[in-house]
Amino acid sequence: MAPSLLATQPAFSDLVEEFRTGSRTPREYLESCIEAIEEREPIVKAFTCHNLEQARMQADAATRRYAEGRPLSPIDGMPIGIKDIIDTRDMPTEMNSDIFTAHYPRTEAACVRAIKQGGAILIGKTVTTEFAIGRSGPTVNPHNPEHTPGGSSSGSAAGVAAGMFPAGFGTQTQGSIIRPASFCGVVGFKPTLNALSLDGVHPLSKSHDHLGTLADSVDDAWWLARWVAECAPAQGHPGLSGPLHGAVTPAKPANLAVLRTNGFEDLDSSSLNAFEQQLDLLRREGVTIVEPEDDPLLQALVEDLQDVPERSLELLAYEMRWPYQDYVAAYPDMVGERIHSLMESATHVKRARYRQLLIIQQQLRGRLQELAGYYDALVLPASSGPAPHGFEFTGSRRLLVYSTFMGAPAFSVPLMQVAGLPFGFQLMGFPGQDYPLARQAQWLTQHYS
Amino acid sequence: MAPSLLATQPAFSDLVEEFRTGSRTPREYLESCIEAIEEREPIVKAFTCHNLEQARMQADAATRRYAEGRPLSPIDGMPIGIKDIIDTRDMPTEMNSDIFTAHYPRTEAACVRAIKQGGAILIGKTVTTEFAIGRSGPTVNPHNPEHTPGGSSSGSAAGVAAGMFPAGFGTQTQGSIIRPASFCGVVGFKPTLNALSLDGVHPLSKSHDHLGTLADSVDDAWWLARWVAECAPAQGHPGLSGPLHGAVTPAKPANLAVLRTNGFEDLDSSSLNAFEQQLDLLRREGVTIVEPEDDPLLQALVEDLQDVPERSLELLAYEMRWPYQDYVAAYPDMVGERIHSLMESATHVKRARYRQLLIIQQQLRGRLQELAGYYDALVLPASSGPAPHGFEFTGSRRLLVYSTFMGAPAFSVPLMQVAGLPFGFQLMGFPGQDYPLARQAQWLTQHYS
Repeated sequence: MAPSLLATQPAFSDLVEEFRTGSRTPREYLESCIEAIEEREPIVKAFTCHNLEQARMQADAATRRYAEGRPLSPIDGMPIGIKDIIDTRDMPTEMNSDIFTAHYPRTEAACVRAIKQGGAILIGKTVTTEFAIGRSGPTVNPHNPEHTPGGSSSGSAAGVAAGMFPAGFGTQTQGSIIRPASFCGVVGFKPTLNALSLDGVHPLSKSHDHLGTLADSVDDAWWLARWVAECAPAQGHPGLSGPLHGAVTPAKPANLAVLRTNGFEDLDSSSLNAFEQQLDLLRREGVTIVEPEDDPLLQALVEDLQDVPERSLELLAYEMRWPYQDYVAAYPDMVGERIHSLMESATHVKRARYRQLLIIQQQLRGRLQELAGYYDALVLPASSGPAPHGFEFTGSRRLLVYSTFMGAPAFSVPLMQVAGLPFGFQLMGFPGQDYPLARQAQWLTQHYS
Repeated sequence: MAPSLLATQPAFSDLVEEFRTGSRTPREYLESCIEAIEEREPIVKAFTCHNLEQARMQADAATRRYAEGRPLSPIDGMPIGIKDIIDTRDMPTEMNSDIFTAHYPRTEAACVRAIKQGGAILIGKTVTTEFAIGRSGPTVNPHNPEHTPGGSSSGSAAGVAAGMFPAGFGTQTQGSIIRPASFCGVVGFKPTLNALSLDGVHPLSKSHDHLGTLADSVDDAWWLARWVAECAPAQGHPGLSGPLHGAVTPAKPANLAVLRTNGFEDLDSSSLNAFEQQLDLLRREGVTIVEPEDDPLLQALVEDLQDVPERSLELLAYEMRWPYQDYVAAYPDMVGERIHSLMESATHVKRARYRQLLIIQQQLRGRLQELAGYYDALVLPASSGPAPHGFEFTGSRRLLVYSTFMGAPAFSVPLMQVAGLPFGFQLMGFPGQDYPLARQAQWLTQHYS
């Protein structure tokens, strides 16, 4: 039997007390990550590049700060994987596109600046699909290397699952954080739209692009996101509320609404069973589970969301015109088929239709808000099942695009298993209510794993 | 006496009929611009670089399209100066900063893509102050080369005034379109916030940055802006309404409100007299001129705007943290004094204060909207007088920052003269009502020049 490709070390946040007392150091923690990299990276292929010597120096600096009793932030010394559509100055930023081969931007992304300010360790750049939407990279799923890790934040999800770093940056424009988190059995956190700055992150669509985190625990996912929101909220947005420090306090949800939308029919019977059993487990704990048929407002939202997967693609294609229309014109041979085809479809979306789509998006955000007083969260599967076999298809986006379209926070928590592979449970919250959602995600992971 | 540095050729939009009939060609028009460049550029210094051979090829292509009766857009064949904080692939983009020496971005700005789609001619990159906010460039004022052309869109304003191109792109974060337009005696148009995409334009502050146009006529300023809005509206924004083609129909305003804010006290007596005389001319035409003392709502707005010049700088400094905090850290010696000092002041603006400033900005935008039914436009001087002597100081921003802060459209129209230099009259409109404002600007220029 091949050796396991899966993480064995504790979460970063669980060790901070030991860093403070000196019974363990950030450098020792980093060495456990480097061991995982040396052992598993040849198979997992999570990185486009890493800089382990620089990481060691950064870890030593963090070790000194804890010893002196003055860490810079809750993430001081945390090794972080950085999706390779995020600008870094010390490592190339290549977007999995030949257009950006050996590209060293002169400007660094706001989120990278934020983690540097916090003393975190830039352990490496992680594999993305082409521009986070085109052809896949080489990364495999650490739970079974014949299966996809999911896209587009493939390397950050697989790297966390393989114990190479406790947390990484991902981005989601359709389902690119929640889906790979589900497939790789890690925590995925997509905050409210614009809570984290996308400055210096290669764009797809401003109405859809989210920066978020993939991590080995709810605490690590929250700490990283919360710190970035503190130092680098998107301009014009107040960022995230909730504590910077300390464990996320678990909160048992009282009422959960099942967002039984288009996309449920993509689940095979084992995956659907796993989800229904999870709902049963929750009911047995006394959590009220509400179905659309029980609540006309919820039913109305589900109906209004029916066309969202298609509308979302129209909006996306229109907004992708910059810069992809230009890439297609200037570098036609360097652009993959999917992007060519999206740019072709963009020519059919007129400005008046774009305006209408923006208004529809606003209306749906309003509809979601109407439910805020009635439910602690909405729930649905975090993918259409466990990771598919092979690498061509990174998985359906249909259950994921709803939270993206409405700009709502979402978590994938690794609660379920199907055919020996992880399968995430998705919690969707209300815009701006990220911390209450994190508390429920914390309760679920502590209660069921 | 030195030969004049001022434009002599007609506006581009006035020639399109001749292009259609073939009695004149875009190539001939371009040659008149190149003549102006050869004669005046050694003194005016409007360009950071130009590519006249490529411009000639583009003009010949436009000439063929008109001959075949199928120009690509109203701006087909229009030579355009591009402020050098706007990404171009064919010419370097240097931001007047050593950090960006010989920088060729792989991505091209959305507005550049838009004008290429429309068949316009990229005649060259124009001088900006450092990152549109720091130290000045070498450009002089074509009306008197011992005077500043104003900043930060110095090269685009001076190049239009000198007849080197009929229209150029500028950006305004405080007063950087309206002020150089006033000083150089050209039309400046700052559209509603986000009506034109800033993608690929080096940022200062998302709540303040505007892309706009400087041109030899209201028609040229409108045509260029309107076309860019059509092809490249900011994501999440419907762009500009109003006609793409044809002359802007003049509209005589019925009611104008004088926005007699902080900043009027910066005017010397000749400049104040010139402005009051212009108001008298309007009154004699039957235009109702309302002063704050006549209308408590207008008076309340003036009072609420009192602190805006300072609040605007706080917001600006906070939002400039990305990427300028990073530039200051990574390239301290390549960043000018003003940016160092803004980044120093940014450390004192906390996130809670930022949130409050965003809300204040929203409230003021609401207050302005309340006046929309009562006035056709608000008026004030477009600078604190004509261009000052010398080059260190590019002029006060105090009369300019109000429209910027409220995201309202504004025009500077060259109606006045003081001490032999031009002095602009500023029209401020209501967000989204750009075309009604352009119509008034058209009436004013036709009536008074």
